[in-house]
Formats: sequence, structure tokens, C-alpha cells
Amino acid sequence: MNVDGKKYRTIWLAEDGGSVEIIDQTRFPHTFETIRLHTMEDAAHAIRFMQVRGAPLIGATAAYGVALAMRTDASDDNLHAACSSLLETRPTAVNLQWALDKARRTLVRLAPEIREEAAFKLANDICDEDIAINMAIGMHGMELIAAISRLKRAGEPVNILTHCNAGWLATVDWGTATAPIYMSHDGGIPVHVWVDETRPRNQGAFLTAWELGQHGVPHTVIVDNAGGHLMQHGEVDIVITGTDRTTATGDVCNKIGTYLKALAAKDNSVPFYVALPSPTIDFSLSDGIRQIPIEERGGEEVSRITGRTSTGEIETVDIVADGSPVGNPAFDVTPARLVTGLITERGVLEANRKAIADAFPERVRASA
Amino acid sequence: MNVDGKKYRTIWLAEDGGSVEIIDQTRFPHTFETIRLHTMEDAAHAIRFMQVRGAPLIGATAAYGVALAMRTDASDDNLHAACSSLLETRPTAVNLQWALDKARRTLVRLAPEIREEAAFKLANDICDEDIAINMAIGMHGMELIAAISRLKRAGEPVNILTHCNAGWLATVDWGTATAPIYMSHDGGIPVHVWVDETRPRNQGAFLTAWELGQHGVPHTVIVDNAGGHLMQHGEVDIVITGTDRTTATGDVCNKIGTYLKALAAKDNSVPFYVALPSPTIDFSLSDGIRQIPIEERGGEEVSRITGRTSTGEIETVDIVADGSPVGNPAFDVTPARLVTGLITERGVLEANRKAIADAFPERVRASA
Repeated sequence: MNVDGKKYRTIWLAEDGGSVEIIDQTRFPHTFETIRLHTMEDAAHAIRFMQVRGAPLIGATAAYGVALAMRTDASDDNLHAACSSLLETRPTAVNLQWALDKARRTLVRLAPEIREEAAFKLANDICDEDIAINMAIGMHGMELIAAISRLKRAGEPVNILTHCNAGWLATVDWGTATAPIYMSHDGGIPVHVWVDETRPRNQGAFLTAWELGQHGVPHTVIVDNAGGHLMQHGEVDIVITGTDRTTATGDVCNKIGTYLKALAAKDNSVPFYVALPSPTIDFSLSDGIRQIPIEERGGEEVSRITGRTSTGEIETVDIVADGSPVGNPAFDVTPARLVTGLITERGVLEANRKAIADAFPERVRASA
Repeated sequence: MNVDGKKYRTIWLAEDGGSVEIIDQTRFPHTFETIRLHTMEDAAHAIRFMQVRGAPLIGATAAYGVALAMRTDASDDNLHAACSSLLETRPTAVNLQWALDKARRTLVRLAPEIREEAAFKLANDICDEDIAINMAIGMHGMELIAAISRLKRAGEPVNILTHCNAGWLATVDWGTATAPIYMSHDGGIPVHVWVDETRPRNQGAFLTAWELGQHGVPHTVIVDNAGGHLMQHGEVDIVITGTDRTTATGDVCNKIGTYLKALAAKDNSVPFYVALPSPTIDFSLSDGIRQIPIEERGGEEVSRITGRTSTGEIETVDIVADGSPVGNPAFDVTPARLVTGLITERGVLEANRKAIADAFPERVRASA
């Protein structure tokens, strides 16, 4: 997507063909800076210190990390060592493991002389595949937005509410929840996005607002408390969020607070859609609320916040009364009954076991 | 309630009998400081600059302001001038107007020699009346908490969720939503309070957490997004909030985000109660969503936040991506169908026209 009028991905091969560039996401929203990864260690550092974030982008960065390792030393020993080092950076990231397994399995069968080239190709392919999935999600989701737009007066925007950042910054490009938005905007459908601030990490106000603004998509940042009121007054036409994990029955685990928006959407007959690449569907789960453990994260995410002072410095401040304990559940589960549909790369599905299984029969067979 | 082990009200007659002390609420949560009001101008300044806040406390401060004016000059001219000056500080505050009308009507009929004494008595009475109402709310609400407690194992706390600050800091003492909590705690019923941070002004994390902590009530601060998840997992037994305005039919206008908590409570069969002094019922209204205009406040309440740096300084930082527009509706309306009951000074009422009218027949007659 565009940054200051120029097209970007979140990760790309540098012009020299042997190093990789990324956008440093730790500096958002106040500073936009790209950095170059020259070595496997640079890639590991970028993942560990969250200069890259979002499952697809983490996987792509790891794959490039392997390629950078093969550039230095394409031996079996170094291949295994690189994969181990990269996996250690964020051991619970599913996409990281998947990308590294894929790289190791592919490369170990090849002669060392061609491993560097093959590894770069594999990383490029992982990026292209992510983009293809997101574009497919975008096209299916755009049809939903277009259908709403056709019922409006000419020029009147479709009002879309989103929560957290399921944007292009969390993927290689397009994003998941944002893909339908960018495609609609680029295709001339007037849209306006209500961006939930998304406490406690503020990914809405920090990331989604930034990327929509840079691409020129009209939007308004609101506190997480405001969405229900806006829906009561007809100011939201559709909700589109992302998800970290979806059950075989269509329950959706996403950033804390998603469930509250789904309830408000239901209460006001606003369609509530979830955009997802199918690899995030977990066919082993059938009851999201009971089966998905919710990570309790550190309280300082709630009690401290970083922003920019009037003199331009980046400063962190305490924003909870001294001595008060803080709770910080990171995700919640929206039951399938509140989900109007799942926007996947194979089309928009009803959020139930049959519809999901019919669209992904090979995944059902593999999990049986 | 207690601050650092010592009993306080938010406003009280100083020991000299001729000046008034208040807690400076602009310094929360990082500094606790009391200030003395010697003149009518001091009282006007305290209201205008929100050193006092909350409808009942603003009314009480205005009444003391009139008394301080009478101390200097008890003429008719000065009485009218003082009332006008005080009303100008926050012209839309209903309680301010009510207290000033009452003071003016009472004092203008008295000989100037006794106006000072009468004015102080009137202000004291307004404070005592507020406390009496809140204690009645507390006792009725405590019965609800006690009933839940009886179903628990010994020592297991009743988990109460509250939103915003309807605490003693917004009244003269006890608060409205917090009165049942303080009475239960003081009476030996184990309670634990989930305190919504309450964006954008963070009154939960700044004020409610502070006052519960000072009084020794167990509590945990959470982001506004978290309550639904906690209810799904049985971690909330009852929700109690305050309200700014309630319709004759039981629709409740309160701080933005209250509606989302009411939806989650309904979805998880958690009782949702609203504590209110009956003067906040507006018998001229029957449809809160259509009839109550919602104030759109300045975007800087969302885009900037003030906290304390690691070196102890108070600093304000920007927390929204540059150039992104911000929306800030300040209140929302929770329809009566989501309200389990209204905790008033005359008992706990169902949120419907008949129950409210039966409890306050004289108000219905007056509004007819």
C-alpha cells in the first residue's frame, strides 16, 4: 500500500538482491523508517524485537532469514542452526514454525551450491502467496461493500468499523480486514472507516489509522467504547475485523473487545464479518470459549502508554492510580452465532461447521 | 470515605467556620491535595476549572460559594451578583442551577444580617441531603450484593464490574454506584471490583481505582474491551454503573461504553444495575436513544493523554497517528430492556415506566 504516495510492502528484497528491507514497526506511529537486514542475525533481531509483527510477516521474515544464512554458509549444519535460532525468537508463533519447517525441508534436499538462490525464491514465494490470499479476501469482501454502496446515495460513503490492526502492516501487503477496504477505495467505492483505538496496545490508533491515512482512505479514530453508540444511530454499515484463530464451527478468537462489537452489531442489525486466511482456521477446535486459552499479558500494557510530547520527544507515562492491580486478557472469543460471515480466500462463508468444511474439504480430511 | 486511613468528604466547612475545603480533583490520580476556598471567587474558580466535578458536588460547591459571598456582603445586589457569577462557571450543569435557585429564593426573603448563617446552613443541608440519598442507594444496593454473596463459598468475593466514576469523588460522600460497594465492604461482605479504565477521560483508572484503593476495597483495573470476556468466563457477578440522566421509561444515559457492557451482561445473564439519585430521572423523556442529544467532545480527549513519567513529572503525550481525525461522543444510551434494575434512594425498581412512576408519584404529577 502507499506511504507518502509511494508503494510499499512490509518486507522486500533489496536492490542488491542479497539483502532484505523491512519497515521498522517499533517506531510507529510517530516515525516511519525502513531498515536493511544483511544477516540471519538481523532477521532474528527484527522478529524478536517486533520490528516486524503479524503472523504472515513473521513467517516471511524468517524465510528471508534462512536465505541470508545460506548466503554466508550453505552447509547442513548452518541450515539447522539458522532454523533453530530463528524459531527461538518467538517460539509460539505458528507461522514462524511453518515457514521454517518448509524452508528446512526444501533446502536440505538440495545441493549446497543452489541453496541460497532456492531460499530467496522460497521466501519470495511465501510473500507472493500471502499477497494472493489477501487479494482474494479483498475481492470477496469488496463485493459486500459494493452491495451496501449500491443502496446509498451517490457519493455517500459506506461506513466500516474495524478493531485492532488486521492491516497491511501485519501482512506482506493488503492486510486481511483492510484488503476489502483498500480495494473498494482504490476501485472508486466511497468508504469511511471507524478505527477503534484498541486498548491496551492501541494498534488501531497507532497502526490502522496510520496506514489508512497514508493510503488516503477517509477514517476517524474512536475509543473502543464508542462503536455501540454509533451503531445505534445508523452510523456503521458493516463491521470487518481480523482474527488470530477460528474454530471449525466458526467461533472467532481476536483482540480483546471484538466480542463487544459483535454484540452491538447483532443488537443493531449491522452485519459483522471476519476476514481470515484459511490457515488460521483450527479444525481441531469446536468450542472457542471453552477450548481457546486466553493469554493474560503484562499489566504495564494497560498502566503505561508511550506517545509523543509537545516538544517531539517519545515518552512513556503511567496512567493508572498508584498501587491499583491491573488485569490484561489479550483476546476474546466471539461465538459464531454473532458472526454474519467469514471472508476467506475461497469466498464469504457462513460461520458454521458445514459451510467451513464444504469450502475446505482437504483441511477437514487432513484433521480427521 | 477514607484517604490514607483518614475519613474525608469531597467538600467540608473548615475549622474556622467561615471557609470551605475541597479536594483538588484536577491533580488525580498522582497527587492528593486539599485547598481552601475563602471567597465566592475561589468557589467559582473551583467549579470552572473542575477542581470539583460531579453534579451533586458542583451544586454543593455553588451553595457554599453563595455563603462565602454573603460573608463579605449580604446585600441583595451581591446575592444576585454571586448567583450569576457562579451560574456562569458551568451553565449547563443542572445541579448548579438548582442549588443557586434554591439559595437565592431562600436568602432573598431573609434579613441581610442572618443571610450568612442561613447560607452556610443551606449549603451544609445540601451536602447532608446528598449523603442521605447515597446512603439509601447504598443500603438498597448492598442487599443485591449480599444476596449474591450468600450463594458463594465463605470468603469468596462478589465480583462487581463498574464503568467510569460514579464514586464518592463525584458526590459529597459514598458515591452512587460505589455506595453499595463501600457499604458491603465496610459491612464485611467480601467484594472485588473490576474497574473499567473508561476511555477517553480514564475516570475509572484515574478516579475509581484511586478511591477504591484508598478505602481498601480489592479491585483490578481493566481496559474497557475486557468486560465481555470476563463475563463469558463467569468472572463478573453483577454490573453497577451510575447515570447522568434516566428517562421515565428507564433508558439510561451514561458515559460512552456503558451500553456495550449492558449487552455483554444480557448475553451472559449477568445482572446489570444502575444506581441513581431520583433527581436525575427526567420525566419528560420516554425514548432515550431518540430524545437525548449526545455531546460530541473535543478530539484531544482521545488523541492526547496525561500521565506521570518515570522521573515523576506530569506529561501529556499524543497517542493517535498524525493527521488522523478523531470522533468523541461522550455518552451513550442503554435501553431499559437491558437494565435489570434501578437502585434509587426509594429502593430497587424495575426499569419501566410503571415501576418508576409508582415509586415517584409526586414527580409524575409535577411533570404532567
